[in-house]
This record gives sequence, C-alpha cells and structure tokens, in this order.
Amino acid sequence: MGQTLRMDTGRTEAFSDGVFAVAITLLVLNFHTPEGNLRSGLLHMWPSLLAYAVSFLNVGIMWMNHHAMFRHVTRADRPLQLLNLMLLMAVVLVPFPTDMLGQLLGHELHGGDTATGAFVYGLVMIAMAAGFSGVWFSAVLRPGIINARIDRHALRVATFRFSVGAVVYVLATVLALWEPLAALIVFGMLSFYYAFEHLPLAPRSSDKLASPS
Amino acid sequence: MGQTLRMDTGRTEAFSDGVFAVAITLLVLNFHTPEGNLRSGLLHMWPSLLAYAVSFLNVGIMWMNHHAMFRHVTRADRPLQLLNLMLLMAVVLVPFPTDMLGQLLGHELHGGDTATGAFVYGLVMIAMAAGFSGVWFSAVLRPGIINARIDRHALRVATFRFSVGAVVYVLATVLALWEPLAALIVFGMLSFYYAFEHLPLAPRSSDKLASPS
Amino acid sequence: MGQTLRMDTGRTEAFSDGVFAVAITLLVLNFHTPEGNLRSGLLHMWPSLLAYAVSFLNVGIMWMNHHAMFRHVTRADRPLQLLNLMLLMAVVLVPFPTDMLGQLLGHELHGGDTATGAFVYGLVMIAMAAGFSGVWFSAVLRPGIINARIDRHALRVATFRFSVGAVVYVLATVLALWEPLAALIVFGMLSFYYAFEHLPLAPRSSDKLASPS
Amino acid sequence: MGQTLRMDTGRTEAFSDGVFAVAITLLVLNFHTPEGNLRSGLLHMWPSLLAYAVSFLNVGIMWMNHHAMFRHVTRADRPLQLLNLMLLMAVVLVPFPTDMLGQLLGHELHGGDTATGAFVYGLVMIAMAAGFSGVWFSAVLRPGIINARIDRHALRVATFRFSVGAVVYVLATVLALWEPLAALIVFGMLSFYYAFEHLPLAPRSSDKLASPS
Repeated sequence: MGQTLRMDTGRTEAFSDGVFAVAITLLVLNFHTPEGNLRSGLLHMWPSLLAYAVSFLNVGIMWMNHHAMFRHVTRADRPLQLLNLMLLMAVVLVPFPTDMLGQLLGHELHGGDTATGAFVYGLVMIAMAAGFSGVWFSAVLRPGIINARIDRHALRVATFRFSVGAVVYVLATVLALWEPLAALIVFGMLSFYYAFEHLPLAPRSSDKLASPS
Repeated sequence: MGQTLRMDTGRTEAFSDGVFAVAITLLVLNFHTPEGNLRSGLLHMWPSLLAYAVSFLNVGIMWMNHHAMFRHVTRADRPLQLLNLMLLMAVVLVPFPTDMLGQLLGHELHGGDTATGAFVYGLVMIAMAAGFSGVWFSAVLRPGIINARIDRHALRVATFRFSVGAVVYVLATVLALWEPLAALIVFGMLSFYYAFEHLPLAPRSSDKLASPS
Repeated sequence: MGQTLRMDTGRTEAFSDGVFAVAITLLVLNFHTPEGNLRSGLLHMWPSLLAYAVSFLNVGIMWMNHHAMFRHVTRADRPLQLLNLMLLMAVVLVPFPTDMLGQLLGHELHGGDTATGAFVYGLVMIAMAAGFSGVWFSAVLRPGIINARIDRHALRVATFRFSVGAVVYVLATVLALWEPLAALIVFGMLSFYYAFEHLPLAPRSSDKLASPS
Repeated sequence: MGQTLRMDTGRTEAFSDGVFAVAITLLVLNFHTPEGNLRSGLLHMWPSLLAYAVSFLNVGIMWMNHHAMFRHVTRADRPLQLLNLMLLMAVVLVPFPTDMLGQLLGHELHGGDTATGAFVYGLVMIAMAAGFSGVWFSAVLRPGIINARIDRHALRVATFRFSVGAVVYVLATVLALWEPLAALIVFGMLSFYYAFEHLPLAPRSSDKLASPS
C-alpha cells in the first residue's frame, strides 16, 4: 500500500541533471574571440574567466548537494516538484549575470555599473540558495518525503549549516555594492564551503530497505 | 507473450527529458547585457523576465504532466513516438517567441507589433497544447497503450480538464491581438492551472503489477 | 562467462540521446526576431520554418531508429562506439546548414547561392545516413554484437530498405543543385519514409532472454 | 555493511554525460553562414571544420574513456566528485578556443595571432588531460574506490600510456607557438591514440559481483 503511493524520483532527478548540465555548459558562450591584439585581449579576459569559474563551481557543487539530498527523498510529490522547478528557474538564469559581470569587471574594476552587475549576480545566487532551501525544507519538514531512518541530528546540523551559507550569500550581495570583485571572490569561496558542508552521504533508500536496520 | 511485445518507454522518456531540459535552459539566451545606463537598462528588462518566467513555467509544468502521463504508458509504439516527436517540435520552438515577445513588450506596451508577437507566442503555446493532446488521446483512446487498471473515471475527468485548459490557450491567443501583456499573464496563470489539474499520480505500472489490486 | 564479456550499452545510449536531444533543440537558434515590419518579416520566415521542420524530423526519426537498433545490440564494443561517434559528429553539424539554407531560401528562391547551400545541406544529410549505415553494418555483419535470435529475414529486408533510403539522399543532394526547395521537400518526405521503414520493434534483449523462444 | 557505505555512481555519470554531450554539441555554434560569395566562403571554412573535428574527437573519445573508467569505480565519494567537476570545467571550455582557432587559421595560416590561439587551444587540452588524470589517480591510488578485482598489471600499463599521451599534449602545445596547424593535427592524432589506448573494458562491477571469480 505504501508501495502504491510511492512516486519514483528518477525522472525528476534526470530532468534536474539535464538542466544543471546544460546551464553549466552554456557558461562557455560568455567567451568570445577578442577584437584587436589577441594576446592582450585574452589577458584582459581574466575577469570573465574568474566569473566563469565561480559560477561553474556554485552550480556544480549545488548539483552535488541536490544529488546528495535526493538520495534521501523517497517520494517526489507535486509540491516538491514545483519547488524543484523554482530552484531550476534560478539555476537557468546564472549564465546571464555571469556574462554581464565578466564584461563589466573587464572594463572597469570599481565603478557604479560594475557594482550594479555584481549586485544582480548576487540576487541570482540568493534566488538559487532560496530555491534550494525551499526544496530542502519541503522535504525535511513534511512527513513522509525523506527516508524516515535518516539521522535527525545530522539533519539539524546540515540545516543549520545551509542557513549559515545562505546568510553569507546575502552579505556578499550587499558587499557587491561597494566591492564587486571581492564579492565575486566570496561567492567562489562559498562554493567550497558548500562542497564540504553537506548531509553525510547515505545509501540509496532502496539499499537501505534491502539491508537490515 | 505480452512481454515480448512490450516496448520500454525508458529511452523515449530520456530523450523527451533531454529536449525539455535543453529548451527550458536555452531561454536564458534571451537575456543580454543592456547597452547604455546599466541600472535603467536592467529595470527595462522586466518584460523579458516576465516572458522568461511564463515560458519556463509552461514548459516545466508540461514536463511534469508528460512525466505523470508516461507513468501510465506501458507501451510506447511508433505512432505514440511520432506524436511525442510532434509535441517536442513545438516545445523546441518556445525560446524564439519568448525572446521576441520580451523585446517587443520592452519597447512598446500596446502596439500592433507587440500584438503580432504575442499572437505568435500564443500559436506556439497552442501547438504545444495540441501536441500534448495528440499524445494523450493516442494513449488513452487506443487499447493496450496505458495501464489497463487505471481508474477510467479519473481519466475522463483529466481529459475534460485538459480540454478546458486548451480552450483557454486559444482564448488567450485571441486576446493577445488586443492586450498582449494581459494575454502573457493569462498564459502564466494557465501554467499553474496545469500544475494542479492532472492525473492522480499513480504508481509505476511495474509497481502496480507487483502489488495486489 | 559470456556475462563477463558483455558490455552494457546504457551509457552509450544515454550519451547519444543527449547529443541528439541537444542538436535538435539548438535548431531553434536559427530563428531571430526579424528587422523592419514584424508581420511581413515573420511571413517571410517560412523557409526557415520549413528547414527547421525537415531537419527536426530527420534527426528525430533517426533518433527513433537509433533507439530501435540499439534494442538489438547486446554488446557495444570500441569499434561500434567509434562508429557511433562518427554518426554523432554528423548529427551535431545539422543546425549549421539548416540555418544557412533557411536564410538563403528566404532571400532568393532559385539562385546559385541557394543551390550551394542546399547542396551542403544534402552533404550533411548524406554524412548522417553514412554514419548510421556504418553503425548498422558494424552491428549486423560482425558476430556477437546484436542479439543472435533476431529474425535474419527481417534484418535483410531492413538493410535493403535503409540502402534505398540512402540512395534517395544522394539523389536529392544532386537535385539540390537545380531545385533547392524541391530537394528540401524530398528530404522532409524521406524522414517519413524512415519513420515507417524500420526493424520490427523487438523486445529488449534482456526480455527475450527471460522469455521462452 | 559495505552495501550501506556504497555510493552509486549513476547520477555522477548521468551529469557528466550531459555536460560532455552539450559541450560537444555546442561546437556547431562555431559555424556561421559566410558573408560574400557563398561557395568561396564555405571553402575557406575548412580550418573551422578541422578544428571542429579535432575537438569533437578529443571530447568524444575522452567521454569514452571516462565511461570505461567509471565502469571500474564502485564508489564515487566527494573528493572524486570534486575532481570530476574540475575535469568537466575544462571540457566545457573547449568550444571557445575551437571557435577562435578555426577563425584565426582561416585568416592567416602562420602568424603571431594564430600561434597565440593555438597555444590557448593547447592549454585547454592540457587542462582536460590534467582533469582526467586527477580523476584517474584519485580512483586508482586511494583504496576502495575502484573494483578490487581489477587486473593491477593492466592498470599500471594504462597509467603509463595515459601519461605518455599527457606528455604529447604538452609537446603539441609548445609546437603550437611555431606551427599552429601542425599542432592542431597532432591533437587530432592524439585523440585516435586515446581511442585505442585504454583499460580493457571490464564488466560492470555489479556483473562481476554476480559472476563467479
């Protein structure tokens, strides 16, 4: 009976994987053969390369955490799917502010326009973190979504640490108004924070069901 | 024997997932760093952002319903695959009128050109709804495509409600000739209608076969 | 023992699905908001829309046949994977001549340049058909690649019919030098030929092994 | 117990497949309808076509080897996933120097700028090879990542041969400073070297576990 109500998460994960993979790959469209002298043109592209690396790591590591989280989800119902769609809606946007911020930093390192671009970049990062939190809380707070056997303490610790990360996203976005380049570097460091702060990787719920408690 | 005639739906779903995921992610290519003053340029991009959100939700939620429908499909034969290809042919087009309508709404909010753009947007939405209906009726009306144990009453209700949605797509497309912005908002609201009107999520047919009726 | 030598075809299929799905979706990048009067601009885009539909159907239906063929493949070894890569190398090219031919047909319906563009379009179609044939013959002629229980007569019939289709691709490419538009329509009709001429859809080889002969 | 610690590699492979497939397909965006006389314009595009083929083969065959390697991986832990992300970060970049080098070779065959472009192309190839080596050594040198039953001698031979390939990547990148076209051809030949130098394709670890030793 519990079986008949179960909704498999496979296609939701496959669709999410697709969107994450395409969004991360479209970041390459930010690079264009520079006009004028090639060597100096390429050297002046370092801000685009930095913005590329920061966005790639933030999206790539969020994919990892999405993957780790869905290993605990045994039932992807409509509300969870809709919240996951909201998360993907933010992920898809990432190449736009990445391109813009790379261009702006390339032209002027500390100006009003660059600050605006970095602030918009931060807003998209916040939207991505908010989308992830939405999926997270929808899975954790409602009964019957995640594996009941998951360690509750580990869950609380992970929730606390994700929240700390979300606060730093907001602070970095405010910082962007004064120091766009510093804010970009903070976003890059945040991706490494998320790389190591995560749920202990548990077995697939199917494995768990198969193994003795 | 029934087993030997069964055609797995896995790769058809994987290919469809890929097309939906790429089409939805290409929507980001509609955004370009604005020329001139950045702050006012970004603020004037709200119609592009609105068109992005409406298209994202319509494609994303249609993906969800595609997913829900294929859970009942036990046999993806050639006719069903061809109709599914017609549906995908409409889905792939979506980024074009989305980009166009966003640009047009950004320049003039109530003009002949904007109305034309919104009308073309509506035609692509209708093509998408028609493609989905084609797959739906091909699965429901022909014997042996969907799981025989599915609740016939729920199926009739779902068919009726999908048809209501399709009629509203047509009405919104006509409205687009007079009120392009209002039509776009109706399309956005339709996606939420489809988010909640759908087949009761049934178990994978394999689960059903395994569990007692 | 036979088991230990088996190579699963799953990831080769998944990678191919991805390339087919992305190539087919990139076709939308051929459409751009027309300059000048929008209504007449859109009406003059019909050659781009036709080229889009013809390419979409050729790639989409080739994907279907790729799918049908790989259901018989029980062992994807290196040579088969390399030939499959050659096929994908042609598939990826498709959006370029599609875009070019749509533009050329939009400007002049019977000129030298349009003929050149349609000829290049035909060459890419031939490369795609040659790639498919390469995979096909590598699977059929070498022992141990496809399911040994497949009906040999059906295989010979399918091989003959694929060869007929390949000859028509060559003829249409020659025709393109005189009648580019007619050639494009022939390519469109060929996709329907391939939609119905194909191997009888057999069960997954795993099903076959499980069921009595 | 070993079971409960196992982390499935399925979604890591699916995400990697997606990124490889999209990156390889975006290579088509390098081609644009040439201005001026079409026939001569197309004939002058051969360097872009050559760069396309070389990049397609290098990425496609690296995908094959990625696939072959992951068949031996039984546990994709965080460090391996992060190193895999570094590899993908290089793969995603490939379309940019490919486009640039094709354009540069089209305009001048032996100039300073072309040499710079070919050198950057080589740097991205080196980054890709370094990323692959990172994943490889992380899997081979740490205990418990790859299948314990894999032939240790075959592993040492494969490691030696991959290292030889990596050295040639570096040499070709240095050569690019003097002979950009020759370097591009060497990169193309290297992809064939990698096509045939690889781990003996072993069964899925799950097959191996199921079959007697």
